[in-house]
Amino acid sequence: MSHNIFGHVFRISTFGESHGPAIGCIIDGCPPGLEIDADEIRLDLQRRATGKTRHTSQRREKDDVQILSGVFEGKTTGTPIALLIENTDARSRDYENIKRQFRPGHADYTYWKKYGFRDYRGGGRSSARETTMRVAAGVLAKKWLKLNHSIEIQGWLAQLGPIRTDEVMDWDSIERNPFFCPDPAKVTELEKYMDALRKSGDSVGARVNVIARHVPAGLGAPIYGKLDADLASAMMSINAAKGVEIGAGFDSVAQKGTEHRDEMTQRGFLSNHAGGVLGGISSGQDVIVSTAFKPTSSLRIPCQGLDIDGNEVEIVTKGRHDPCVGIRATPIVEAMMALVLMDHILLHRAQNG
Amino acid sequence: MSHNIFGHVFRISTFGESHGPAIGCIIDGCPPGLEIDADEIRLDLQRRATGKTRHTSQRREKDDVQILSGVFEGKTTGTPIALLIENTDARSRDYENIKRQFRPGHADYTYWKKYGFRDYRGGGRSSARETTMRVAAGVLAKKWLKLNHSIEIQGWLAQLGPIRTDEVMDWDSIERNPFFCPDPAKVTELEKYMDALRKSGDSVGARVNVIARHVPAGLGAPIYGKLDADLASAMMSINAAKGVEIGAGFDSVAQKGTEHRDEMTQRGFLSNHAGGVLGGISSGQDVIVSTAFKPTSSLRIPCQGLDIDGNEVEIVTKGRHDPCVGIRATPIVEAMMALVLMDHILLHRAQNG
Amino acid sequence: MSHNIFGHVFRISTFGESHGPAIGCIIDGCPPGLEIDADEIRLDLQRRATGKTRHTSQRREKDDVQILSGVFEGKTTGTPIALLIENTDARSRDYENIKRQFRPGHADYTYWKKYGFRDYRGGGRSSARETTMRVAAGVLAKKWLKLNHSIEIQGWLAQLGPIRTDEVMDWDSIERNPFFCPDPAKVTELEKYMDALRKSGDSVGARVNVIARHVPAGLGAPIYGKLDADLASAMMSINAAKGVEIGAGFDSVAQKGTEHRDEMTQRGFLSNHAGGVLGGISSGQDVIVSTAFKPTSSLRIPCQGLDIDGNEVEIVTKGRHDPCVGIRATPIVEAMMALVLMDHILLHRAQNG
Amino acid sequence: MSHNIFGHVFRISTFGESHGPAIGCIIDGCPPGLEIDADEIRLDLQRRATGKTRHTSQRREKDDVQILSGVFEGKTTGTPIALLIENTDARSRDYENIKRQFRPGHADYTYWKKYGFRDYRGGGRSSARETTMRVAAGVLAKKWLKLNHSIEIQGWLAQLGPIRTDEVMDWDSIERNPFFCPDPAKVTELEKYMDALRKSGDSVGARVNVIARHVPAGLGAPIYGKLDADLASAMMSINAAKGVEIGAGFDSVAQKGTEHRDEMTQRGFLSNHAGGVLGGISSGQDVIVSTAFKPTSSLRIPCQGLDIDGNEVEIVTKGRHDPCVGIRATPIVEAMMALVLMDHILLHRAQNG
Repeated sequence: MSHNIFGHVFRISTFGESHGPAIGCIIDGCPPGLEIDADEIRLDLQRRATGKTRHTSQRREKDDVQILSGVFEGKTTGTPIALLIENTDARSRDYENIKRQFRPGHADYTYWKKYGFRDYRGGGRSSARETTMRVAAGVLAKKWLKLNHSIEIQGWLAQLGPIRTDEVMDWDSIERNPFFCPDPAKVTELEKYMDALRKSGDSVGARVNVIARHVPAGLGAPIYGKLDADLASAMMSINAAKGVEIGAGFDSVAQKGTEHRDEMTQRGFLSNHAGGVLGGISSGQDVIVSTAFKPTSSLRIPCQGLDIDGNEVEIVTKGRHDPCVGIRATPIVEAMMALVLMDHILLHRAQNG
Repeated sequence: MSHNIFGHVFRISTFGESHGPAIGCIIDGCPPGLEIDADEIRLDLQRRATGKTRHTSQRREKDDVQILSGVFEGKTTGTPIALLIENTDARSRDYENIKRQFRPGHADYTYWKKYGFRDYRGGGRSSARETTMRVAAGVLAKKWLKLNHSIEIQGWLAQLGPIRTDEVMDWDSIERNPFFCPDPAKVTELEKYMDALRKSGDSVGARVNVIARHVPAGLGAPIYGKLDADLASAMMSINAAKGVEIGAGFDSVAQKGTEHRDEMTQRGFLSNHAGGVLGGISSGQDVIVSTAFKPTSSLRIPCQGLDIDGNEVEIVTKGRHDPCVGIRATPIVEAMMALVLMDHILLHRAQNG
Repeated sequence: MSHNIFGHVFRISTFGESHGPAIGCIIDGCPPGLEIDADEIRLDLQRRATGKTRHTSQRREKDDVQILSGVFEGKTTGTPIALLIENTDARSRDYENIKRQFRPGHADYTYWKKYGFRDYRGGGRSSARETTMRVAAGVLAKKWLKLNHSIEIQGWLAQLGPIRTDEVMDWDSIERNPFFCPDPAKVTELEKYMDALRKSGDSVGARVNVIARHVPAGLGAPIYGKLDADLASAMMSINAAKGVEIGAGFDSVAQKGTEHRDEMTQRGFLSNHAGGVLGGISSGQDVIVSTAFKPTSSLRIPCQGLDIDGNEVEIVTKGRHDPCVGIRATPIVEAMMALVLMDHILLHRAQNG
Repeated sequence: MSHNIFGHVFRISTFGESHGPAIGCIIDGCPPGLEIDADEIRLDLQRRATGKTRHTSQRREKDDVQILSGVFEGKTTGTPIALLIENTDARSRDYENIKRQFRPGHADYTYWKKYGFRDYRGGGRSSARETTMRVAAGVLAKKWLKLNHSIEIQGWLAQLGPIRTDEVMDWDSIERNPFFCPDPAKVTELEKYMDALRKSGDSVGARVNVIARHVPAGLGAPIYGKLDADLASAMMSINAAKGVEIGAGFDSVAQKGTEHRDEMTQRGFLSNHAGGVLGGISSGQDVIVSTAFKPTSSLRIPCQGLDIDGNEVEIVTKGRHDPCVGIRATPIVEAMMALVLMDHILLHRAQNG
């Protein structure tokens, strides 16, 4: 909820810059007794890894995560769990040219205005590399949720530029293509689109959906710790996120009440426009969240910008960038969903036993 | 860091149920020396008041706010400011029939699942009546922001069901019609639509935009206290909210990077797709947020539901309800914008002097 | 994570000034289903009430507490519980003479330095009247702890000026005298001492002990949410508190390890120098805390002070003051003990189920 | 304020066990632009280092602190600062014998009761090794306070077992002896006492005082973020702490109001019984805190205890332990003072500009 700490009672605090010595996080409040090892964490890190395919950044970090504390004889002890990844493939020389420039669409300018000083290398703290630690922390949450509540979380690419892929045709196919696309028939189209995009030097936005199944009813602490408000905060805190929807989201605007309200029968709800949350509390239905990611602004196509002295300059961004950052966002939204649900399950049992 | 507390260093804690003795809030962390009186607060309360026009609920609360603490000789003292409004027009008998029923689309079921017990009268704690206190607290924030930073905040109805009104044709017109519609030419269309809707017994969703001007660059505490993440949380915490966008929002998905990135010149930014936030920190541009509100589910048109014993029942909601809750959301999104900005200005100066 | 909020997941936020319209609090995170009514709260308020005997202040507040929210049909609902007491016996004219003066030993000067502005009437926010709400909130915590964990909390006067009463001779006698003295043989001595003190116009300090029995082992969230650290914060936050001890406290300084360490057998611990807390976590032994209260500085005996213009002035404090504020502190330290234990039980079950 | 995070807006989160791979911390909210390097941090770490003299534990850690983030080109950037120290001299074999035993006076039993599982090596998370990171974080706070407010913080040994050294005879002498003793005449007595104690196999308690000079008036956020309450929490959270006093502390109990109240003249206060805090807010006087530390229970002298199966066992603690943990507490209480003051200065300027 504050500064660099996320969560109420299951809390994540991350640190590290893109080109500093290391990135890491502290997970605070994890229940004791959860079996975990570094290899399990690495599996999910590979899902978001740079250098995975030609469609994402060519930075090739090993993401060799170490568990520094809070785990003893393979199990969590209840004390803070520190995770660390050393940065090994940081090529800071790529950034010499933007040392004194503010790249439009980036946090360069705003960090400068906030702090008067910044680590300009690779975006410093504002780099998407920070999300590595969200994914790492999310692994513990996902595992605990699965073991204790059978909760399953799955994200997928719902749209990439003009190509809509929001309807899930085949759940199993999501992990079998580099786009987390749930429709095998669209994969070739996506590949062609991305190849052309990369050649053009431009980038594009994306929309990523995530579903959580078997979420117990009753999670959420109204009014200012609502489950959906915390999910909105979680997703909007991801780099490049510009919009968040729960359930029907913006489609609700044109809906009638008779259409939107999810009627209930003894067999269950007849629809799920609510996205699993009513009055800020989970209803037992699937929790469904959609997040919009903007196109990255790190382009080799020149644009107008300013330098730190206020001069107008032409900005060209070199370095190794994703033409669609949304592709790799899938494991990140899953992680944020897991962190929020985990936090709320623990918070719920604080008050409700 | 939440439950019923919102904010980091300028914090709001609200209490009260729709049909309880009173609703109220504590504002904690308000700078000393701000001149304020109850009448100023009442002005904004009237903007969101029920019973304002035939298009909103006919519950007629006087909303006679009292300042119980933290203000001495007309000025804030720096200590907690408590505001209180007694509930006077609560007609609990309207709710006898739903005492044992879960209204679909409402928080009845989820509160029941969470707490095993609920104040069913008028939605209890989940009633939109709680937002009265957000508006009241927002008055102090808006005033302080205006006096100290010339920040101006204005909300408007951007869409009501099928009618789009997102383009502001006339800023002054917003306050001159009961819809907060920024296009005088559309008011008649809105009135006709609402009259027909009310007759039909149905409800409809809405989208409300809000702009904050003259926001200084540098606000936002990355990574987990990002300005946009806190705005997303703030807006999603409002009753009936289902989606939040910053700047281009979901339109970013189909945008190219060359289109989305807001180029900078010495005359300023050439566009504002970012909505005034880059990397979670304000850029000095206008901060623009859009929120989707679902149609209320309180309808006299029957639907299928369950009662607390699990029996299937036909639900008909009587009582006095807004056919479009989004109409009255305009002062609420303004208030939430003000509370977030106020909090972040104070938080910024904590760290940055 | 504070300002005017106390606790992690069971949280109290208070408001109100000594001579303002009312004082009150919000209790956030209380489990649902606890039966409570205003009369139960009033009982404990009477224990700390002003005007109880000739030994305490003659301000006679009815302390007619109202429950404004969070309780429905006599039971807590899980939503924020607001309590309110209107101030009725505030005689602000008593304070006209100190309007522009800083009473030594009071918060007058420091509030002025902090906020540049203050409600001078009766100490404003710094008045011990605020503790009324701690006692009120503590009633709910004490009741819940008793019902759910058989926890019993009892405070007593351990020393008043030179008179030591720390050894409990008769638990039942504590409530039968106006001093909360646990030794009936000392009551007359205390009365004589206080009568002489009152005549002299001076005041004196006191030490108050509190014990909590049947506290389950395992409470406390190391490192920075340790049970003893939270107890220290709780007690030191009470008006006039200057010192806090857990168990052997300052006596530990001269102890040897062989003396201090509480050996364990199958029949239990052989001593309790730890005061029930080891490594910040409860051990299952009685939790014992001792708090030092300074003598009030509100005296009719003149002293040197300054006014707000920096002039030297002779200060004489009229008004109705307790010659020993520690006497009435007993219900307050009990309440703070209850609030901390309640918070930690809920926090414990968040992480540990 | 919660779990493993300390502070409101300048916040410390630590991790690590005594015999795990590493210990570390995240410092969140540090103002940008502070020059800092690892060597400065190491200087203070040496002050608390084990192996310093024959009077403290013979564990010889290099405490080779690394700065992993938040510092760029030698200056803080405003983003989270991570510090890391690898554990190199951990001899876990020393602890094999207590793997299944609960050492009396230790956190072994309580961690077991809380988490049902523990890292038993060297006390795991409850080891005083954690305080290394407090000292490390404190270095940044102390430096910033000195540079920006001329605040100076100095701790000293005030009592060791029966030997009182609370009166400061020579400020400069404190750093010139291994006891942080402010009276050169007492050093030989302390050495003899400690030599005899070590031979006896026993341990002893200590009292440590700390003063902060040039603290501006106005720090402290009443009611539940009072400066003295936060100091009490800070000191009580240190391993082995059992009591905390501000100013006159427990001596206040026997004081009269005419004695205790610190009269004010144009030349300043005439005394400082308050210890620099009135009503929870700093007065501009020196802030003075005294902390009691119990004798360590890690003794080679056998005692009665239990094992994890509930059997009675004779406990003998080998390993390398301090016969008086209070000696090394001096840099720790200084660090905690610095962290609290830093936090409150930033918090103050949030609300008060």
